[in-house]
Amino acid sequence: MAKPKKTPRPKAQTPKGFRDYFGTDVTDRAEMLQKIAGVYHRYGFDALESSAVETVEALGKFLPDVDRPNEGVFAWQEEDGDWLALRYDMTAPLARVYAQHRNDLPNPYRRYTMGPVWRNEKPGPGRFRQFYQCDADTVGTASMAADAEICAMLSDTLEAVGIQRGDYVIRINNRKVLNGVMEVAGLAGEDKKAERGIVLRAIDKLDRLGPDGVHALLGEGRKDESGDFTKGAGLSELQIEKIMNFVNSYEPVSNRLALEASRAADEGNSTRADQLTFARYSVDGAFNDREGRLQYSEYRKIWNQRIIDHLREVVGGSDVGFSGVEELQQIHDLLSAAGYSDCRLQIDPSVVRGLGYYTGPVYEAELTFDVQNEKGQTVQFGSVAGGGRYDDLVKRFTGQEVPATGVSIGVDRLLAALRATNRIGTTEQGPVVVTVMDRDRMADYQAMVAELRQAGIRAEVYLGNPKNFGNQLKYADKRNAPIAIIEGGDEKDRGVVQIKDLYLGAKIAETATHEEWAENPSQFEVPRDQMLAKVQEILNQ
Amino acid sequence: MAKPKKTPRPKAQTPKGFRDYFGTDVTDRAEMLQKIAGVYHRYGFDALESSAVETVEALGKFLPDVDRPNEGVFAWQEEDGDWLALRYDMTAPLARVYAQHRNDLPNPYRRYTMGPVWRNEKPGPGRFRQFYQCDADTVGTASMAADAEICAMLSDTLEAVGIQRGDYVIRINNRKVLNGVMEVAGLAGEDKKAERGIVLRAIDKLDRLGPDGVHALLGEGRKDESGDFTKGAGLSELQIEKIMNFVNSYEPVSNRLALEASRAADEGNSTRADQLTFARYSVDGAFNDREGRLQYSEYRKIWNQRIIDHLREVVGGSDVGFSGVEELQQIHDLLSAAGYSDCRLQIDPSVVRGLGYYTGPVYEAELTFDVQNEKGQTVQFGSVAGGGRYDDLVKRFTGQEVPATGVSIGVDRLLAALRATNRIGTTEQGPVVVTVMDRDRMADYQAMVAELRQAGIRAEVYLGNPKNFGNQLKYADKRNAPIAIIEGGDEKDRGVVQIKDLYLGAKIAETATHEEWAENPSQFEVPRDQMLAKVQEILNQ
Repeated sequence: MAKPKKTPRPKAQTPKGFRDYFGTDVTDRAEMLQKIAGVYHRYGFDALESSAVETVEALGKFLPDVDRPNEGVFAWQEEDGDWLALRYDMTAPLARVYAQHRNDLPNPYRRYTMGPVWRNEKPGPGRFRQFYQCDADTVGTASMAADAEICAMLSDTLEAVGIQRGDYVIRINNRKVLNGVMEVAGLAGEDKKAERGIVLRAIDKLDRLGPDGVHALLGEGRKDESGDFTKGAGLSELQIEKIMNFVNSYEPVSNRLALEASRAADEGNSTRADQLTFARYSVDGAFNDREGRLQYSEYRKIWNQRIIDHLREVVGGSDVGFSGVEELQQIHDLLSAAGYSDCRLQIDPSVVRGLGYYTGPVYEAELTFDVQNEKGQTVQFGSVAGGGRYDDLVKRFTGQEVPATGVSIGVDRLLAALRATNRIGTTEQGPVVVTVMDRDRMADYQAMVAELRQAGIRAEVYLGNPKNFGNQLKYADKRNAPIAIIEGGDEKDRGVVQIKDLYLGAKIAETATHEEWAENPSQFEVPRDQMLAKVQEILNQ
Repeated sequence: MAKPKKTPRPKAQTPKGFRDYFGTDVTDRAEMLQKIAGVYHRYGFDALESSAVETVEALGKFLPDVDRPNEGVFAWQEEDGDWLALRYDMTAPLARVYAQHRNDLPNPYRRYTMGPVWRNEKPGPGRFRQFYQCDADTVGTASMAADAEICAMLSDTLEAVGIQRGDYVIRINNRKVLNGVMEVAGLAGEDKKAERGIVLRAIDKLDRLGPDGVHALLGEGRKDESGDFTKGAGLSELQIEKIMNFVNSYEPVSNRLALEASRAADEGNSTRADQLTFARYSVDGAFNDREGRLQYSEYRKIWNQRIIDHLREVVGGSDVGFSGVEELQQIHDLLSAAGYSDCRLQIDPSVVRGLGYYTGPVYEAELTFDVQNEKGQTVQFGSVAGGGRYDDLVKRFTGQEVPATGVSIGVDRLLAALRATNRIGTTEQGPVVVTVMDRDRMADYQAMVAELRQAGIRAEVYLGNPKNFGNQLKYADKRNAPIAIIEGGDEKDRGVVQIKDLYLGAKIAETATHEEWAENPSQFEVPRDQMLAKVQEILNQ
């Protein structure tokens, strides 16, 4: 008889592009999400947890930069022929949920949701195929008050989780203004779609390439440092000027404020002159650190208004552009009345947002403090959240246009930011470890941990093989235990326990002389009935 | 030119067997899970969130009752040929994680995890293909102290979320005892596998069919009420007796306690006689309500010990059976020393647990209070958690046997139980709704909600079309808002706001006379600067 083939052992590995989260990676995130949910709830948003699985047709095709089959989603076919897929974001499922339940939901419907999404992308370093999103959206209202509310809420949320004012900015733009500029630059119409695409991508790179780089990409093209050439949009100088005048509104607004300030000074109105100069500083000179941003915070409002005024000129003659500027004005008025038009808010024409479905206001939260990137360079932390208005998404299901606006927080990035600034703890104090000196007295040791736990103290008994006591202390060390408790037969007979302060012990081990070491000041013998009190005393130090 | 085909609209529907959770369905669950995590953490368990996606080979084939392709999992093939799948439970991924990271993890490794799992089963009423699990496991120790700890923790967890003592019981058995009984009944060996399967399934039905039903299934078979015949295991009367003597340990133990009690009474030891009688009552007469269970709680320990003694006799001659009884004894000794061997704990030979991978102790948490089932019948709520020891699961990956034990809580069922007993709120107070009387003064209304939110009050401004005021009040009603705030032009001029107490208003509408109604005692006019104070006053009533 032939021997049955041995099945090879499965590999113990997460699939490529997936990862596991341990300990504080899980609990820190949960803590952060709970704070976020608290703000959302206070703003009247209701929780929603939609199914992780959707039909492929319900998800639609909204993912950008798809380089994988199945349009970038993980999909499989059901027995009955239907294709199902894992959600790739929280917006497509929201549109489905709203269309399905619209008769039962309040209208407008404010909802928040948090959970994993999946993308069938080529895995790479730091590029994962499952990650968390945390979204808040308002469906069923075209009012700019909804967009303004979400920007204010985003600001409050960042502060609630521990990002300090002055360390972040909510940048706002409007897609209609962009479209207006395209119109003015002669790039409207279905046949100019390719050019518009190149222009949008160029604008999106302003941060990285600067005005000259964007200018080059709008014209013939640009050679980068490595010598690679990127073909440009091939626009005329006049077209480029119109677009640059929009993208880089910074310069003309700054110049105008300087001019007005000197005029005010000439007229002897030094207060006004100062205000206008500070307004310039609010973005310009004060851009580089938190103190500067806070110092000139109140003048940012003047700056923001001037940007809007400038945009109104730039889109002159375009109806859609004008309507976009009016929307920006409304959002700014509301946020300004609520006090947010300070260092927290920046009207910023270079905000584009990748996703194709945005139709009006777009917004982004950027963290402005410096961190070291993988290459050791100092860079601004950058974007942690973004969103905008998408009025057509529900229409796919119902045929009726349903206006909606919302924001998505990049949970992993925001958590990384909190850790980078020590706003959330990354190492956790381990449990008190009760060691096992006598295998037959496990019940005694269990009684000790029960006593500690009942007092709210995290505690555990060593459950490995107790033979080698050294292993028990190594285990306590690996657990980052603050305290180990020891009760051998001798201690039991005398009614006492030994309590080792492991943190103090480690500190002493680093610095102590032989005499100090011999005194062993990190180990205490206390009567058994004073164990709890002594443990509490050590933990409260 | 032919017109391009119109794509049909996608259906706005959750895929079959999936569902969405709204509002308190999400937040109540989160609240419950947070309490559970608190207990687990205090017991020294660390959080783990493994990837939702695993390779099919890592998941293995442990699902029972598979009636769908892909072994009951949702799976798809990667471009590189690998098959990936959604996890169907939390245990298979834990085995993978432990095998992958064993050099970095503490040993033993206590971990908890909570999240969705997916089963590719035929959807049916109340049968979902995505649901939550919440697991705690200890990997790397064969000590019965680990099993005892998990049973104690399960008990503490149920009480922490709001299940009262006496309303639940942790039932414990041991697979080795079962195997020992099989051996004693002549059902050991590979060729008796089919019979053993029938016997196990019959035992599992003791609750539903009673001893006579199980007896029939062990013999020729059983005809149910509808006349359908289920073929039995075809055992001899002697075999059946041995198994029934095990399954239905209740009867012999009860009889013996009665006998001992009367003997003690004869000997004039009335205290002892009472204890033995109460021990009988602890499971018998007091089984039907919480008061009874609490009243005889302290005598349950005698009963539990007698069951173990009885099992020791039943498996006499089987090594594996004897070892199982000794393990039960150890767990009971530890739990008994910690005070848990009362109404919280029941040694119960009828606990089988479906999954094939259990190798030793098995345990189950059962809620004992009555609820109405879908048919309107009064039934015990039943099982909400279960688990056991599985010593072979990590071996698949590493070749080395790694002992492990753990429990899984059925999150949806436990939440349903809390709701059934009003331990957790199912309706939520909505936000204070600020109505919009004048579209141009949105900033004023936003200022009001901002003031309320800053005081920690959930509040929102109406964002729909404000034209029809009735719609705004209907919206407030749908949101279950406690209060609506109104500030028209007249109020604005006079520096006041109208505050409607909507809960009081609804109450008055039900009972008020015409005169009472005309007085409108649920609406207050207050100066604008007293709005917050008045809202707080109403909310605190």
